[in-house]
Amino acid sequence: MKYQLAIVGGGPAGYTAAEAAGKAGLSVVLFEKNSLGGVCLNEGCIPTKTLLYSAKVYDYAKHASKYAVTVPEASFDLAKIIARKQKVVRKLVLGIKAKLTAHQVTIVTGEATVVDKNTVKCGEEIYECDNLLLCTGSETFIPPIPGVEEVDYWTHRNALDNKELPASLVIVGGGVIGMEFASFFCSLGVKVTVIEMMDEILGGVDKELSALLRAEYAKKGIKFLLSTKVTGLSKGENGTVVAYENAEGAATVEAEKLLLSVGRRPVMKGFGLENLGLELTERKCIKVDEHLQSSVPGVYVCGDLNGVSLLAHTAVREAEVAVHHIIGKEDTMSYRAIPGIVYTNPEIASVGASEEALQKEGIPYQAVKLPMAFSGRFVAENEGMNGVCKVLVAEDGEVLGASMLGNPASELIVLAGIAIEDRKKVEDWKRYVFPHPTVGEIFREL
Amino acid sequence: MKYQLAIVGGGPAGYTAAEAAGKAGLSVVLFEKNSLGGVCLNEGCIPTKTLLYSAKVYDYAKHASKYAVTVPEASFDLAKIIARKQKVVRKLVLGIKAKLTAHQVTIVTGEATVVDKNTVKCGEEIYECDNLLLCTGSETFIPPIPGVEEVDYWTHRNALDNKELPASLVIVGGGVIGMEFASFFCSLGVKVTVIEMMDEILGGVDKELSALLRAEYAKKGIKFLLSTKVTGLSKGENGTVVAYENAEGAATVEAEKLLLSVGRRPVMKGFGLENLGLELTERKCIKVDEHLQSSVPGVYVCGDLNGVSLLAHTAVREAEVAVHHIIGKEDTMSYRAIPGIVYTNPEIASVGASEEALQKEGIPYQAVKLPMAFSGRFVAENEGMNGVCKVLVAEDGEVLGASMLGNPASELIVLAGIAIEDRKKVEDWKRYVFPHPTVGEIFREL
Repeated sequence: MKYQLAIVGGGPAGYTAAEAAGKAGLSVVLFEKNSLGGVCLNEGCIPTKTLLYSAKVYDYAKHASKYAVTVPEASFDLAKIIARKQKVVRKLVLGIKAKLTAHQVTIVTGEATVVDKNTVKCGEEIYECDNLLLCTGSETFIPPIPGVEEVDYWTHRNALDNKELPASLVIVGGGVIGMEFASFFCSLGVKVTVIEMMDEILGGVDKELSALLRAEYAKKGIKFLLSTKVTGLSKGENGTVVAYENAEGAATVEAEKLLLSVGRRPVMKGFGLENLGLELTERKCIKVDEHLQSSVPGVYVCGDLNGVSLLAHTAVREAEVAVHHIIGKEDTMSYRAIPGIVYTNPEIASVGASEEALQKEGIPYQAVKLPMAFSGRFVAENEGMNGVCKVLVAEDGEVLGASMLGNPASELIVLAGIAIEDRKKVEDWKRYVFPHPTVGEIFREL
Repeated sequence: MKYQLAIVGGGPAGYTAAEAAGKAGLSVVLFEKNSLGGVCLNEGCIPTKTLLYSAKVYDYAKHASKYAVTVPEASFDLAKIIARKQKVVRKLVLGIKAKLTAHQVTIVTGEATVVDKNTVKCGEEIYECDNLLLCTGSETFIPPIPGVEEVDYWTHRNALDNKELPASLVIVGGGVIGMEFASFFCSLGVKVTVIEMMDEILGGVDKELSALLRAEYAKKGIKFLLSTKVTGLSKGENGTVVAYENAEGAATVEAEKLLLSVGRRPVMKGFGLENLGLELTERKCIKVDEHLQSSVPGVYVCGDLNGVSLLAHTAVREAEVAVHHIIGKEDTMSYRAIPGIVYTNPEIASVGASEEALQKEGIPYQAVKLPMAFSGRFVAENEGMNGVCKVLVAEDGEVLGASMLGNPASELIVLAGIAIEDRKKVEDWKRYVFPHPTVGEIFREL
C-alpha cells in the first residue's frame, strides 16, 4: 500500500495532520499503538481538566455562602469522578476517529517501525509513503532518585485513575502537572506537600504570579518546599518517606502516596528513528526547520518529539504547518505567541516573552500591571479574591508578553497571543469594542 | 469656573470620557445627579451580573451530581444576594470615583442644565466650558397598556432590589433585560411567564440560537408566549392579571408580580437639551458624526442618548472617540463589531452582522456552524449540554458576523469582534496558537 503521507503517532500533532492532509485530498495512513488522541486526550489535558472541573464544582459548593447560597454539606464520589472522566475521553476519542474517517484517513492500530523515509512497517504489513510525519510525543521522566525502584509511586497516569483518596500526598515537581494535581487533591481534602527543586513553582511562568498562586494554595493548606532537592525515597509505615535537603538542612516527609512529576522527555526510541539518520541539535533534539521538516527532505517531526515546546496546542499548529509545506501552501511556524496555562483555581495563563527572557536578551520593556478587580465582572464573580493582569510592553508600545492570574485566564490569554503574533500595540486593544461586563475588558484598561 | 470639557452624565460614556480627558491633561467637570456609574453600574449590567452569578452558584449546587459531587440540599438568601450586589456596586462606584479624582476631574453631584454650548448651570453655580459632552443615558419605556396606571409593576430597578421572592412572575418583553431576569428568577424557583410581541425572544440576536435558548428555558419551566400582544393589565386576587392576544385568541395570565421590560428610550428632557438646537435624525435621535460630534461644533453626544446602540460598551468606545476628537487625535467610531451579550445560563453572545441584515442587504454569505462539543473543554465542563458556534462568512472568507450559545460565550465573542473589525478571514484564526484545551479553540475549528 502506498500513501502520500504516513504519520507515526495519533496525538494532537498526528490527528491534526491526518485531518488536514485528508481534507487537502492526500492519501494518509496514521499509526497509533494505543488510543487516538495521544497523551493529551487520554491521560493529559482533557482528563485532568475533567477532574479539575469536578473539583471546581465541589469548591463552588463549599464556598457558595460567599454568594449567599447555602450548601450545608457537599461530598463527592471519586470513583464516579473518574468514571465521568473516562466517558468524556471516550466521547472525544470517537469524535477524532469520526473526523479522520470522514477524511478517508487509514487508521492502523499497532506499533509502527520506520524502515526508511519511504517505508513504515507495522506488524507484517509494509506501508510505502511519499512523506513521513513523526510525532510520537513524550513520556514521563522518572528521576534517578536513590530508592525510586523500591517504592510505589504514581505518575500522572496513576493519579488520574486512582479511585481511593489518599490521606496525604507528596508531589515531587511543582511544574504545571504537579500543580494541577496539587490543586485537584487539595480541593478534595488531601494533605498535599509539593517539593520543587527551583526557587519557585511553575518554572517558565511569570514568577510574581506564580508566587501569588503559591500563596493562595498555601492558605488552602498545601505545604511547599522550594529550592529543595529530593535525596532519597523509602518505604515508610504508612506510605513513602521522602528525604530531602534544602537551605535549612536535611529532613523527611512521609505521605500515603507519592506523585513524580518532574518532567517529560521526547519518545525517541522504539519506532526506528535511528534508521533515518536525522540531524540532531546541540540539546540532542531532532533538528527541524520552520516548516517542521527534518534534515531529511520529506520527513517532518512535530509535537513533543521535536522537544521545542511540549504542549498540545503547539503540536497542533506545527502539524498544520507541516501539512501546508507538503501540499505547497505558504506557511511557517511561529513560536512568538505560544500560550501556557495552569488549570489551577484560579488559573494562570501566560503567552509570549517572559520578563526573564527579555532581561536576558537586553530588550527594554515596561511591565504594566492591573489588579483583576479593574474588571467589574471579575468583582461580581470572584468574591474575596483578586488576581493580576500583567502585560510586558516594548518602548514603542508593542505587546511582548502577558500573564494573567484569575479566572477565566485560560480563555482570555489568546487575546494577548493574537496581539503578540500580529505585533500589535497596547493601544490597539482600545480600538475594539469589548463587551461589558467581561473579564477580558481588562486588556482595554491597560 | 471654566473647563475645557463639561460632561453631563456620569455613566459609562461620562466617566470614560472624564478619565480619558483628564489623562490627556484637559480640565474636566462632570455632572451626575445620582450615582457615578449610571444605569450600567448602579442598576444595569453590573448588578444583574452579580445576581445572576449567585443564581449560577445555586444552579451549580443543584446540578452538582452531573459532576459526581453530591449536594443534598442547597438554599439561598435573597436578601443577602441583594446585599452582596449593593456591596459590589459600591466598590465599583468608589473605584470610578478614585480614577476620576486621580485625573483631577471635578465631580459635581446635582442636576445640570445646559444653558448654551459653553455654559452649564448646576444649582446656583455657572460652569463655562470649551467643549460639552452630553451622555444622559436612557430610561425604561413604560408601554401605554390599558390599566398600566392601576397596577403595581416592576421595572428592572424594582426587580433588582426585591428581597422577597414572588411565587410567580410575568415578564412583558423577552429582550435581553427580560430574559436575564427570567433566568435569575427561574433559577431561584419562581414560576416565570415571558410575553413577547415578536415571533422570537431576544430580537436582534441570531434567531436560531435564540430559539435554542428558549427551548432550554422552556425545559426549565419558563412559559413563553411569542407573537403575543398584551392588551390590558388589572389587579387580581393574588397579584396582577395580564390580558393578552395571539393567534390562538385572547386569554389572561395572573402572577404575583409583573415586570415590564419592553425597552429603553434616550433621556432627552430635563437638562436643557432644547437650548442647543441640535439637529435630529429621521428617527428623532440626535444626529452625530463619526467623531460623536453633533451638528453644533464642540457639542458631543455619546452613549444611549444618541440612540445608536444603547449598550454600555458602545458608550465607552464612543466616549474615547469623542475625547480623541477634542484633543486632536485621529480616531473614528466604528459600529462594525459591537458585541451583544445575554447573560443567561448558558450565555448567548453575538457580534457583527446578523443573517437577517446580510440577507436584507443582499450580501452573499455562508453560515458555518459547529456544535460547541467540538471543544474538548466544553465537553469536560458542560455535562449533558450543548451549544452552537455560528460564524457568517463572506465569499472571500471574511468574517462578517458571529454568534455563540454556550459558556463562556460572553468572554469569547470579542475574538470574533476583533476579526470582524480588522476584516480578517476565517483561516486567519488558524495562524494563532489557541491554548488547549479551551472553549475558544472552536474558532480555529471552523
